Amino acid sequence: MKRLQLGLIGGGRMGAVHAGVFAELAKAEDAIDFVAIADNAPGVAADLAKQLGVGKAYGSIDEILEDSEIEAVFVATPTFTHYEVVKKVLGKGKHCLCEKPLTLDLEESRELTQLAVDLNLILQIGFMRRFDPDVISAKESIDRGEIGTPLIYKACHRDQSPPPPGFCDPKKSGGIIIDNNIHEFDAGRFIFNDEIVEVFAQPGIVVDSGIGKVGDLDNATVQVRFKNGGIGQIDSSRNSCFGEDIRFELLGSAGTVFWGQLPMRGVTIATANGAKTPTYLETPTRFVPAFHGQIKTFAKSVRTGKQFGPDGEDSRQALAIGLAAYRSIELGRAVRVSEILG
Amino acid sequence: MKRLQLGLIGGGRMGAVHAGVFAELAKAEDAIDFVAIADNAPGVAADLAKQLGVGKAYGSIDEILEDSEIEAVFVATPTFTHYEVVKKVLGKGKHCLCEKPLTLDLEESRELTQLAVDLNLILQIGFMRRFDPDVISAKESIDRGEIGTPLIYKACHRDQSPPPPGFCDPKKSGGIIIDNNIHEFDAGRFIFNDEIVEVFAQPGIVVDSGIGKVGDLDNATVQVRFKNGGIGQIDSSRNSCFGEDIRFELLGSAGTVFWGQLPMRGVTIATANGAKTPTYLETPTRFVPAFHGQIKTFAKSVRTGKQFGPDGEDSRQALAIGLAAYRSIELGRAVRVSEILG
Amino acid sequence: MKRLQLGLIGGGRMGAVHAGVFAELAKAEDAIDFVAIADNAPGVAADLAKQLGVGKAYGSIDEILEDSEIEAVFVATPTFTHYEVVKKVLGKGKHCLCEKPLTLDLEESRELTQLAVDLNLILQIGFMRRFDPDVISAKESIDRGEIGTPLIYKACHRDQSPPPPGFCDPKKSGGIIIDNNIHEFDAGRFIFNDEIVEVFAQPGIVVDSGIGKVGDLDNATVQVRFKNGGIGQIDSSRNSCFGEDIRFELLGSAGTVFWGQLPMRGVTIATANGAKTPTYLETPTRFVPAFHGQIKTFAKSVRTGKQFGPDGEDSRQALAIGLAAYRSIELGRAVRVSEILG
Amino acid sequence: MKRLQLGLIGGGRMGAVHAGVFAELAKAEDAIDFVAIADNAPGVAADLAKQLGVGKAYGSIDEILEDSEIEAVFVATPTFTHYEVVKKVLGKGKHCLCEKPLTLDLEESRELTQLAVDLNLILQIGFMRRFDPDVISAKESIDRGEIGTPLIYKACHRDQSPPPPGFCDPKKSGGIIIDNNIHEFDAGRFIFNDEIVEVFAQPGIVVDSGIGKVGDLDNATVQVRFKNGGIGQIDSSRNSCFGEDIRFELLGSAGTVFWGQLPMRGVTIATANGAKTPTYLETPTRFVPAFHGQIKTFAKSVRTGKQFGPDGEDSRQALAIGLAAYRSIELGRAVRVSEILG
Repeated sequence: MKRLQLGLIGGGRMGAVHAGVFAELAKAEDAIDFVAIADNAPGVAADLAKQLGVGKAYGSIDEILEDSEIEAVFVATPTFTHYEVVKKVLGKGKHCLCEKPLTLDLEESRELTQLAVDLNLILQIGFMRRFDPDVISAKESIDRGEIGTPLIYKACHRDQSPPPPGFCDPKKSGGIIIDNNIHEFDAGRFIFNDEIVEVFAQPGIVVDSGIGKVGDLDNATVQVRFKNGGIGQIDSSRNSCFGEDIRFELLGSAGTVFWGQLPMRGVTIATANGAKTPTYLETPTRFVPAFHGQIKTFAKSVRTGKQFGPDGEDSRQALAIGLAAYRSIELGRAVRVSEILG
Repeated sequence: MKRLQLGLIGGGRMGAVHAGVFAELAKAEDAIDFVAIADNAPGVAADLAKQLGVGKAYGSIDEILEDSEIEAVFVATPTFTHYEVVKKVLGKGKHCLCEKPLTLDLEESRELTQLAVDLNLILQIGFMRRFDPDVISAKESIDRGEIGTPLIYKACHRDQSPPPPGFCDPKKSGGIIIDNNIHEFDAGRFIFNDEIVEVFAQPGIVVDSGIGKVGDLDNATVQVRFKNGGIGQIDSSRNSCFGEDIRFELLGSAGTVFWGQLPMRGVTIATANGAKTPTYLETPTRFVPAFHGQIKTFAKSVRTGKQFGPDGEDSRQALAIGLAAYRSIELGRAVRVSEILG
Repeated sequence: MKRLQLGLIGGGRMGAVHAGVFAELAKAEDAIDFVAIADNAPGVAADLAKQLGVGKAYGSIDEILEDSEIEAVFVATPTFTHYEVVKKVLGKGKHCLCEKPLTLDLEESRELTQLAVDLNLILQIGFMRRFDPDVISAKESIDRGEIGTPLIYKACHRDQSPPPPGFCDPKKSGGIIIDNNIHEFDAGRFIFNDEIVEVFAQPGIVVDSGIGKVGDLDNATVQVRFKNGGIGQIDSSRNSCFGEDIRFELLGSAGTVFWGQLPMRGVTIATANGAKTPTYLETPTRFVPAFHGQIKTFAKSVRTGKQFGPDGEDSRQALAIGLAAYRSIELGRAVRVSEILG
Repeated sequence: MKRLQLGLIGGGRMGAVHAGVFAELAKAEDAIDFVAIADNAPGVAADLAKQLGVGKAYGSIDEILEDSEIEAVFVATPTFTHYEVVKKVLGKGKHCLCEKPLTLDLEESRELTQLAVDLNLILQIGFMRRFDPDVISAKESIDRGEIGTPLIYKACHRDQSPPPPGFCDPKKSGGIIIDNNIHEFDAGRFIFNDEIVEVFAQPGIVVDSGIGKVGDLDNATVQVRFKNGGIGQIDSSRNSCFGEDIRFELLGSAGTVFWGQLPMRGVTIATANGAKTPTYLETPTRFVPAFHGQIKTFAKSVRTGKQFGPDGEDSRQALAIGLAAYRSIELGRAVRVSEILG
């Protein structure tokens, strides 16, 4: 299979993370060639390209889209810019892997999804959780029936410390329930093979006043109901303090699957005062294999012309769940996802 | 301190568990003398008394209440009988430790609580979770401020397998959300030092058709909000299959407390096929220290005339949360506990 | 099966532990009736009998042996007295369950073993580790071939804190390598289905000067070789400080079995400073099921006339390994167990 | 600090691992520039250089040593070639980081160590365990006195599956006790701040007949004694099967430090049949941070002219312990390291 000639748009926080993964992947495996980076901010692309040994750097998105060598683009710009960028990418005939969520607007998500279909291009969304080897193992055991009928889905997504308030601004990020929990919404749909049809959300105490000022939450709970009768409880926080605490468990009629571990380091000191284990305060490399799986699946989709990864419609569904959660907070009642999807 | 002369009313499932604890405690510590057992069912008290070496057995509740040697009674009859039994116990001037919940009716709970106050008797409710050494450690670390402001309370209560449907009948047990989660409601109030003011509950798939026939659930979720802004997610199940799975975690602004462990046995076989660890399918002796703490606190309360354990009002509050949860399921909306308490 | 009419000789530290187990067992199961306690120290038997509700107390060993109701005796006197006591017990035609080791002298062990055979009496030794449910699971998985050929046995036996020096006196206890590690020697023979044929032992730093004064060690290592080629490493300590740390692992050609867990309590506080878990500083009830299994096996052996538990020869073999370890320390070289057994 | 201009000699198994680390490090941090790779085998250096984006590839060791841009060389050729290669590297005035052990001959180790001193060059040995963040945490807690006086060191080093017999050939690798356990010998010396003075080793069953044919072991135990009275037990295996099992624990007079975790994956399926957790069959990226720490320390040493990492004498001491272990097996007795060091 010919390596995918890939470019990256967006060299910010997550863009740089992905760039590192692409660079490593480009070296170690034969799925992609990482050929160019673009960022509208002066110098960002050049610096990142130099650091990672990527051949080309562009100071604007428009330029990279003119590069005929590039077949596909990873879009890692801020969420609120996705619509414009992805539209351009597809318009230039390039396949697109877009960070989650595709957009913060349901109609725009639908439009982009349709556009990709019309142009016969792959549009994959960055729900990388689906490619985590342990999530895959969990799903396989569920699909084999090892835990029987899925009954209760319980998940948490707790960052070690908050991102800058500017990043959290709901107009840019969608707000914590969308920005963080969209992973748990998608993973829930994926793991249950089912749709979330109703949500009831509650805001928690706002710990970080900067986050409060931009109108976001840093703690929230969302209770969900699936179409086939399953139920779930998802929480989100920016305040775990001891490390990135992302886990789920799925209770079925014959057993429970537990996914994720606390970020404990590999040393324990046990004395008469108890046992102490340091934790990873910085995000560990836990999701690197998932990022690898995501990009390889994207490359395979492009090469075979068949969508293997999550698409724009998956993003739209997960977004609708998040929007329903915010509507629920606003109205103080459970909200059916169909009320949002229309 | 003079040992408390204690009698037990009710030799059924939980009554027998408590009887074993009393018998052991009566031997090993100096808090109580376990002097008599009563059960209206023929032979039950006599058999249990013989098995445990308890001196007296009564074939009726009325008889044990005439025993002037007995200062205090543990009531472990089915929940729906508590009101009549406790009223009699108090009426005979005996202190009472009553299994949770005190009653399934708010007004009756209030009446019994007031009766105990009027008669200057101790009425303690069996929220034994408060006496678990690890819950106490958790609470102490929270009270010392180690995890900062409590933000999110997450708890599960999953039985290994369902009790008989007859036991589950909501008219007798209150239903799973009251029968099981009343512990989590009380523990939440206790740990947060706060009141739950709003709940939103959802019924899950009913796995055990017998339980469905008597009108109970075997899977449910309850999302709660505390007066001071904390939020929580509690689930309940009769289907854990691998063991009794009862845990909680409390996320605070400076850290997280985790309480409870999976019921893993102390042997693991690791091969190229992975690691296998058997679990305790039968309820382990995990809560024995909590039962000990409960009865010792009761004895101390009787001896000092001061209520140290949870009282009838604690039961009424927790019951109200459970009733609000069922009302929430009925109405499909969040219900404020004040709507229930009136 | 008729309940075994059991008496206990020795109401000291371990005697009291066993007495509690017998009392509980006598109540809850139908294996034994715990009918009498004897101790030569004034008042000890009477106090213990009263505390546990045991019917008869004797102020001397000779008296209990005249009690014709008693079929079998558990001997829990100090190790150095075992020979005389067990000889008397058997001489009176009573079956005997004797704390490990049977004696500190190989010839005396052989004599008592033969005496029991000659008199057609059961003589079982208190290697209770063999009855621990998790050891049994470990052995079953090994016997099923799940880990292939046993290769390396690794074990530790570390007490939380030292017993009184008087107890440790090697003339009375055999010394730490016999007193503690005799369990690991026996468990190793049991798990491997093999004999330890050579040992090399090393003394560690003596931490407790009182123990040093009586001529014992409080830290030691023993490296062993099995007849079939397996090898092993066993350590012993009186200084674990954080709790009783007793574990083993057995590496086979196809996998590893891990037995035992650190004595962690069920609560963890995770903050930016790491995760803290208190430990059980006092010996937990971990081995209670093993004590139950031991006594039930003894009762079954008496009733069926067939030896199901470890016998005097098992004690002699394990003792010989311990003696070889001390000889190894003395000589500074590996010692073959056959050099000790003669 | 000017980046260290680094070359790699040896593109085999471990050489490629290190090359990947250097490539990543060269990108992400400012410690080194990874400028060239050399391997005498045709094509190896060129392929690896291309894969990793390294600028220069040399088909012979002699050529890379003529490259005046290169200040320092990492030697990752087979152990038995180290002496010749390192001698050349130093002779060309280049600093050297050499894979462990420096050589398989004590005199040659001494000679190279002296040569580096004479030429004022840094010669660091690849005892990367010292740079593992968790080992460092362990050592810091020990150095702070948290576990009191070190008493017992217990370590295992068990590969998931054996390397090819040709690699294991003791003439090339030193044999398993040197090839594997040299890490545990060095870590023991490092952690205890003490010297191992005596060893007693035992060979285990040889599982892999190919390894047996080349004269190596695949299972062995080594019991050690430290100068200050500490004792230890170290085992080595090529047969863990379930993953790479490398751990140690250090019992002190006030507590125990546990280092290393079983290679469990982050998913568990718990059913009535127990809990199953898959393991990492392939070596995970566990030691990548240690490799980073190692090379950064080397760069710092070169720049400051001061030896911060383990040197040739550390290798010679650890080698002597390994040679003493083999002598012990040969002679069937404990061997003092001084007998080997002369």
